[in-house]
Amino acid sequence: MAAPVALVQGASRGLGLEFCKQLLKWKTPAVVIATCRHPDGSAELQKLAASGGGSGGSPLTLLKLDVDREDDVRAAAERVAAQFGRVDLMVNCSAVLHPSGRGETSLRDVSAQGVLSTVSTNTVGPLLMAKYFTPLLQQGAGAFGSQPPEKGRQHRAIIVNMTAKVGSIGDNALGGWYSYRLSKAALNMVTRNLAIELGRSAHNKVVCVSLHPGTVATDLSRPYHRNVPAHRLFSPEHSVSLLLGIIQSLNMEHTGQAFNWDGSPLPW
Amino acid sequence: MAAPVALVQGASRGLGLEFCKQLLKWKTPAVVIATCRHPDGSAELQKLAASGGGSGGSPLTLLKLDVDREDDVRAAAERVAAQFGRVDLMVNCSAVLHPSGRGETSLRDVSAQGVLSTVSTNTVGPLLMAKYFTPLLQQGAGAFGSQPPEKGRQHRAIIVNMTAKVGSIGDNALGGWYSYRLSKAALNMVTRNLAIELGRSAHNKVVCVSLHPGTVATDLSRPYHRNVPAHRLFSPEHSVSLLLGIIQSLNMEHTGQAFNWDGSPLPW
Ligand SMILES: NC(=O)c1ccc[n+]([C@@H]2O[C@H](COP(=O)([O-])OP(=O)(O)OC[C@H]3O[C@@H](n4cnc5c(N)ncnc54)[C@H](OP(=O)(O)O)[C@@H]3O)[C@@H](O)[C@H]2O)c1
Ligand SMILES: NC(=O)c1ccc[n+]([C@@H]2O[C@H](COP(=O)([O-])OP(=O)(O)OC[C@H]3O[C@@H](n4cnc5c(N)ncnc54)[C@H](OP(=O)(O)O)[C@@H]3O)[C@@H](O)[C@H]2O)c1
Repeated sequence: MAAPVALVQGASRGLGLEFCKQLLKWKTPAVVIATCRHPDGSAELQKLAASGGGSGGSPLTLLKLDVDREDDVRAAAERVAAQFGRVDLMVNCSAVLHPSGRGETSLRDVSAQGVLSTVSTNTVGPLLMAKYFTPLLQQGAGAFGSQPPEKGRQHRAIIVNMTAKVGSIGDNALGGWYSYRLSKAALNMVTRNLAIELGRSAHNKVVCVSLHPGTVATDLSRPYHRNVPAHRLFSPEHSVSLLLGIIQSLNMEHTGQAFNWDGSPLPW
Repeated sequence: MAAPVALVQGASRGLGLEFCKQLLKWKTPAVVIATCRHPDGSAELQKLAASGGGSGGSPLTLLKLDVDREDDVRAAAERVAAQFGRVDLMVNCSAVLHPSGRGETSLRDVSAQGVLSTVSTNTVGPLLMAKYFTPLLQQGAGAFGSQPPEKGRQHRAIIVNMTAKVGSIGDNALGGWYSYRLSKAALNMVTRNLAIELGRSAHNKVVCVSLHPGTVATDLSRPYHRNVPAHRLFSPEHSVSLLLGIIQSLNMEHTGQAFNWDGSPLPW
């Protein structure tokens, strides 16, 4: 069987970069397509590509993709179509807390521009990825997730949208972070809608879920690290290995849902 | 006691216009501030203003406010501060289904521009209203809602964000309408955040809820009327009288929640 094809969107740093590393060493090492705004600007990603993709030896392909630019998304999909013809797993990692790097602490900090820019990256980005990559996902070989043996191959591919616990409306007890919270709530609606639309066809089903990675030591959460007890601040390695475990357990029964890093359901 | 002060944002047509009519004839007729993009363009609103505000005889004030323009929101708040000094009820009615007038039936119809424009009006709009009108709401006299007698006056004002059942993530079984659905899910997060931020201060609490008006015969739903059984298509009169009944029952116990037209909870 041909190697699984995984696409990681937002791969320059943080969880996206770690997804690339672990997927390259996956049980059946995946062919990884890593997209980011500035492929030349990510030394780690360049190193990974140059090393032939880590110990597994599976290749890493770098593509330029700013998720705020619909043209970039379209062009990347055309490149992947020509070069790979299919995608088995697409992980949308890119996100911003706020253009300023800090979530709003109160209404005073809210601006239309800040909200719309955050929604563009965190919500519209993954939606555009789905729009342009759906034909490739529908050609997937179903290499990720668990296909219930009694049912034969049910899904062809999996879309993972990285959500956040603070994007849960029902769970919100602290407030603040207007832009980020509302962009992730909206992203969860995107997940739900995609699950419905991509779950319809008899032979080309695509699973779509939202996953919360825990609180992870990356640039995104850096301004807040000191408020987090050490045992609750995950390393990217730990978080991604948990998330890949969840991804490997997914099938059509899980589509349209949101899960925490430990597999427990995340309320809307 | 001075007349209650109600502000209806998005008052040119549909439910917003009907809110103005009914509030002017309210048990204690309210002073109504009606905002819309083109005050000169709404013949009905002009007529209502000229008639001195219907049978109750309470006055109607028209203000220009395009909720996509932060400057308009700021300027309207300054006008209301100078003229009224407080607001007891703010109802955010304006919304679009999509700039095209039709919700997306599938991914093919999705565009970044369509989503962002919808979010600007449906989500960012009510959030900017809260940002600029909070000082006035915190000066409210608590004229709307039910103040539990044993606790004294608990809230000073109420914010109503008009949501939609299709904005419920958990309830979504049909998909489609990407922009509208995600904008309303995001609006529900705004409601939740506002409830927390505006529920904190000891003496200036503001209740904030999301309300779903049912399927109502207005321009917004017009393209879909023929799919709705007649007994489930409400008139604006019927819907608004139900919603005002709910509003009249609200207190701090309800803040941060979403309700249907019949008072039942709307899941996130
Ligand atoms: N870290 C946490 O505690 C935590 C918690 C909950 C959820 N999450 C979610 O997990 C995901 C990964 O976060 P992280 O912690 O790894 O964040 P991070 O280290 O800050 O990385 C963010 C990534 O997003 C990329 N990005 C930003 N805007 C982009 C755009 N317009 N186009 C393409 N890429 C863009 C960045 O690329 P550049 O290098 O080009 O800037 C970077 O690769 C996010 O969805 C985040 O919301 C994280
Ligand atoms: N009708 C339903 O079945 C239904 C169901 C669920 C929820 N809702 C919600 O109920 C609310 C009222 O809807 P409706 O049925 O009364 O809709 P409608 O008849 O289409 O009226 C929409 C209103 O929004 C205004 N508006 C649009 N963009 C605006 C902007 N940028 N700035 C200021 N005002 C703007 C329009 O003003 P112009 O005249 O200037 O265009 C109009 O007054 C909406 O939030 C809607 O989502 C309606």
